[in-house]
Amino acid sequence: MDTAELIELGQQLRVDSVRASAAAGSGHPTSSMSAADLMAVLLAHHLHYDFDRPEAPSNDRFVLSKGHASPLLYSAYKAAGAIGDDELLTFREFGSRLEGHPTPRRLPWVETATGSLGQGLPVGVGIALAGKRLGPHDGAVPRVWVLCGDSELAEGSVWEAAEHAGHEHLDNLTAIVDVNRLGQRGPTRHGHDLDAYARRFQAFDWHTVKVDGHDVDAVDRALGEAESTRGRPTVILARTLKGRGVASVQDREGLHGKPLPHADEAIEELGGVRDLRVRVQAPPTVRSLHSVPDGHLDLPRWEPGDSAEEVATRDAYGQALAALGTARPDVVALDGEVSDSTRAEYFAKEHPDRFFECYIAEQQLVAAAVGMAASGWVPYASTFAAFLTRAHDFVRMAAVSGAGINVIGSHAGVAIGQDGPSQMGLEDLAMFRAVHGSTVLYPCDANQTAQLVGAMAGLDGVRYLRTSRGAGPVIYGPGEKFPIGGSKVLRSSDGDRLTLVAAGVTVQEALRAAEALAGEGIRVRVIDLYSVKPVDRATLRLAAEETGCLLTVEDHHPEGGLGDAVLDAFTDGRPVPRLARLAVRTMPGSASPEQQLHAAGIDAESIAASARLLVETAIVP
Amino acid sequence: MDTAELIELGQQLRVDSVRASAAAGSGHPTSSMSAADLMAVLLAHHLHYDFDRPEAPSNDRFVLSKGHASPLLYSAYKAAGAIGDDELLTFREFGSRLEGHPTPRRLPWVETATGSLGQGLPVGVGIALAGKRLGPHDGAVPRVWVLCGDSELAEGSVWEAAEHAGHEHLDNLTAIVDVNRLGQRGPTRHGHDLDAYARRFQAFDWHTVKVDGHDVDAVDRALGEAESTRGRPTVILARTLKGRGVASVQDREGLHGKPLPHADEAIEELGGVRDLRVRVQAPPTVRSLHSVPDGHLDLPRWEPGDSAEEVATRDAYGQALAALGTARPDVVALDGEVSDSTRAEYFAKEHPDRFFECYIAEQQLVAAAVGMAASGWVPYASTFAAFLTRAHDFVRMAAVSGAGINVIGSHAGVAIGQDGPSQMGLEDLAMFRAVHGSTVLYPCDANQTAQLVGAMAGLDGVRYLRTSRGAGPVIYGPGEKFPIGGSKVLRSSDGDRLTLVAAGVTVQEALRAAEALAGEGIRVRVIDLYSVKPVDRATLRLAAEETGCLLTVEDHHPEGGLGDAVLDAFTDGRPVPRLARLAVRTMPGSASPEQQLHAAGIDAESIAASARLLVETAIVP
Repeated sequence: MDTAELIELGQQLRVDSVRASAAAGSGHPTSSMSAADLMAVLLAHHLHYDFDRPEAPSNDRFVLSKGHASPLLYSAYKAAGAIGDDELLTFREFGSRLEGHPTPRRLPWVETATGSLGQGLPVGVGIALAGKRLGPHDGAVPRVWVLCGDSELAEGSVWEAAEHAGHEHLDNLTAIVDVNRLGQRGPTRHGHDLDAYARRFQAFDWHTVKVDGHDVDAVDRALGEAESTRGRPTVILARTLKGRGVASVQDREGLHGKPLPHADEAIEELGGVRDLRVRVQAPPTVRSLHSVPDGHLDLPRWEPGDSAEEVATRDAYGQALAALGTARPDVVALDGEVSDSTRAEYFAKEHPDRFFECYIAEQQLVAAAVGMAASGWVPYASTFAAFLTRAHDFVRMAAVSGAGINVIGSHAGVAIGQDGPSQMGLEDLAMFRAVHGSTVLYPCDANQTAQLVGAMAGLDGVRYLRTSRGAGPVIYGPGEKFPIGGSKVLRSSDGDRLTLVAAGVTVQEALRAAEALAGEGIRVRVIDLYSVKPVDRATLRLAAEETGCLLTVEDHHPEGGLGDAVLDAFTDGRPVPRLARLAVRTMPGSASPEQQLHAAGIDAESIAASARLLVETAIVP
Repeated sequence: MDTAELIELGQQLRVDSVRASAAAGSGHPTSSMSAADLMAVLLAHHLHYDFDRPEAPSNDRFVLSKGHASPLLYSAYKAAGAIGDDELLTFREFGSRLEGHPTPRRLPWVETATGSLGQGLPVGVGIALAGKRLGPHDGAVPRVWVLCGDSELAEGSVWEAAEHAGHEHLDNLTAIVDVNRLGQRGPTRHGHDLDAYARRFQAFDWHTVKVDGHDVDAVDRALGEAESTRGRPTVILARTLKGRGVASVQDREGLHGKPLPHADEAIEELGGVRDLRVRVQAPPTVRSLHSVPDGHLDLPRWEPGDSAEEVATRDAYGQALAALGTARPDVVALDGEVSDSTRAEYFAKEHPDRFFECYIAEQQLVAAAVGMAASGWVPYASTFAAFLTRAHDFVRMAAVSGAGINVIGSHAGVAIGQDGPSQMGLEDLAMFRAVHGSTVLYPCDANQTAQLVGAMAGLDGVRYLRTSRGAGPVIYGPGEKFPIGGSKVLRSSDGDRLTLVAAGVTVQEALRAAEALAGEGIRVRVIDLYSVKPVDRATLRLAAEETGCLLTVEDHHPEGGLGDAVLDAFTDGRPVPRLARLAVRTMPGSASPEQQLHAAGIDAESIAASARLLVETAIVP
């Protein structure tokens, strides 16, 4: 396209953004209008993309980090012929693919869900990292383009991404920042001071280009400069005006997230409706990723029994993941600078080419996993369970994306001991259970852990595995199977008067309590609820009916964890037997693991005491 | 102290760090040893602090962001005479104040709990901001010193803090970075490249000083330069060696978080045990903050009834907060660049001196609130409920601190409508319930909101208020009281066959459903469970017993929210009546609020349908 055509295309994207928002009665046209020329030039001259084959590995990737500018994205899809004008005008309607913020669950051309700001660039880093380090391996590394807003550069996650991309020399990554000076509430910190942003990105080892974002030829040159820059990612800092092209809204405050007041007049001012089509350049044809067939999965095995060595589930995790990596060439591992603790280091040693050190930047850790999942890889991302709270918003948005990621939190609960509450995951089960479509697993022994690590790879959505620091006995045989949504009845008899429901470190405590109670003539059932979500409703309901009372025991705060998960089995409107729970109700300090479990009232002794009360007197534990 | 004495003091801090860790059998002596000279010079020559009056507003503030170096902190307390040697050697023991990571819940000289990296500087920014903008007002602004690790500079939260501090010209803030080159697992990204860090901080408008962190005179000059620098915060980048002073561990990998292998030999190599005392300089005497007495709280009032105008709870929040700010001079408000949406703008307009714009940086938003609470202020921090997930780790650590902060999440649930799932808080109740010692409130009308905004100020711990985007009817009179831990029975009769438990937007839906059911001859009770945590066990238990069945209805995912909160009333070991719940079980798209509530099955129609089934057939809803 020549200059005039690019200008026309930009105007068309503006007009269509105004039209879509007007039809919806809501949306962000002014945020779309500022970036319209950037998008026009990118689409017409720089993006290599086959809209008919969005899964093609050689496609460039485009991420709209400022997801509220969705009218611009959908207008671009229309210009590229991917959607029709009729569909464009369904924007934000119930059932439409064109949501307020774009998501790959609805649209095949969207790489990742955006709308929570500061996430597009970190996920783009993950995609670019996968492209550069993992393939396609014939030299044609696809380019990743991320269109950011200026407001969102206040998010720390953007600087985690900037650091990661600079350090990894991701020259296949380009960030385009639409510096329109205005956030939602008012002016940004730096307004149109492009130098302020340039200094920051340069400090993080990026190549920077400043440009008038409404000068299509200058934008064209800038995007070309990004493509030809080697050894560094490039950021294009584009000075733009919010609402550009319509005098009544241009560069004005108080108009964020609102349709234009007089859409028809605005469209006229913009030169009216057009129907330009862009022939987006096709990517080169390359062979697909993951052409190596999966090998046989040879999981590590441990022999159960008193004489066996004790094993920590985090150790089993590391060993199982290394084995999974051998069997499956599409498995990658990421860690937040604690791989010696999470034991992801076992994978790193065996498969260094597929291990990604993300340093102490948990948002980038999870975002990289999401980006790799979007590129067809099966990521396992690990850090301490406590520090995964840092990435909660990224996990939430991964669910909106429908991304298939495995997240592993080690050092869960008070059982870690002396390090104290800052290092204890005591909220992680609540956090991961509340994520839509998630799976939450909490193994108690090495063989169970290994089996679950293998099973996770084949699930949909966000999969969370909680591991423990300390070693424990091997309870199950190496051949035992652990279906997702299942549980294991570890101890039962006809005369059971109570059921203990435990998971992870409390399983062994529950077994010890059951043994002590048996010595007093009180028989209790013990269920290992390793699948916290989905939960084994049938087994729980049966146990409650047969034994009359359930006592849950968890190394987690009382809210949102195992106890609440068990409730799921009893919200079907049928009468519920007696329920009680033990959980960590205090703020722990430093102490040995044994002291911690006792102080929290979740060790064998506390369990037995509560069970006695429930069985004999039906008093509150 | 002269040079030789400062060197001696540094060695004493090393020796005591080694001794404390050896006594504990765990801890981080090598991370303490790298920063020992920095701490010695700070303590002896620059810190102004009265250990006998930690609450004195004119005290400097010291934050150990690298909280794992707690042996160094406690050794410094000993050198300053604040604790004795006996107590030092209780490090990490059960019941000791000297936890693995420091927390103000145990020690009066600790400003904020650390141990989750990247949090000390953001909280320090909050303290410095309060000191500079809010007082003491006699010109003696206390200095805030934050000792950071180099590894933690990978956290985006550090750069949110850097941006905030630079933008606010916080020249009363000094960050000291202990660049010891080694993280937990191995080398950091930048090793000893001080320039790499200097470039980054300079880009964010900080004054930077590079120094040999083991040259006490150079450190002394650097700290002095920080004190005399005006208009900008200063970062001192100190090149150090991990494990400095003991050849077998100095600058070596694989020794993070471990006591020294041969403590006695190490102590000998360090010159043996010393007992130097430091006379820490006293701060100037200034009048206390908040000397203005509280005024009468004149909350906004709305008249209930069909004819009244509808009001959104977010609007009521903003108006009530503005009124609270008038009554209480110690109330401050912070917002994440969405104050026009959260309605914190009402406060900002009336009390601009006590309003803090934190831009789109939710971690810094919550950290600033924690810092202000540590300075005696009562902060209200607001953004969209969905985006509070970004600050989950900061909220978690606020609970470890025991910080009293109010957090407000607006735009909760599918009821926001067209913007779609990225903007919907559907996990926030689960997140805040699982925080230790938290209070979780979810009002359904304007008067209730106003009352709760006032009540929050006087509570302990983390207080969360969930507000809604759309307007709703005024249900309660302006004089009505809403105790924390209470509920309101909005509809009841002797013949109730079911109880609907709702909160926020579902209250109105439940009332409508009850009305429809009454028309069919089915009487149901309706409870407004505005206090989600603590929960009104007595009323729920009574309702269950009297009506036989509870149906909870929430605009939240099924896990960890209202339904799970209700369970709390039924885990006392007594038999439980029938339970069922309605919640958002799907991933929503874009749609009108009404369509959203219907699609999620939580509108009046869906509630009535479920209630009919439960009452008439006892079938699963």
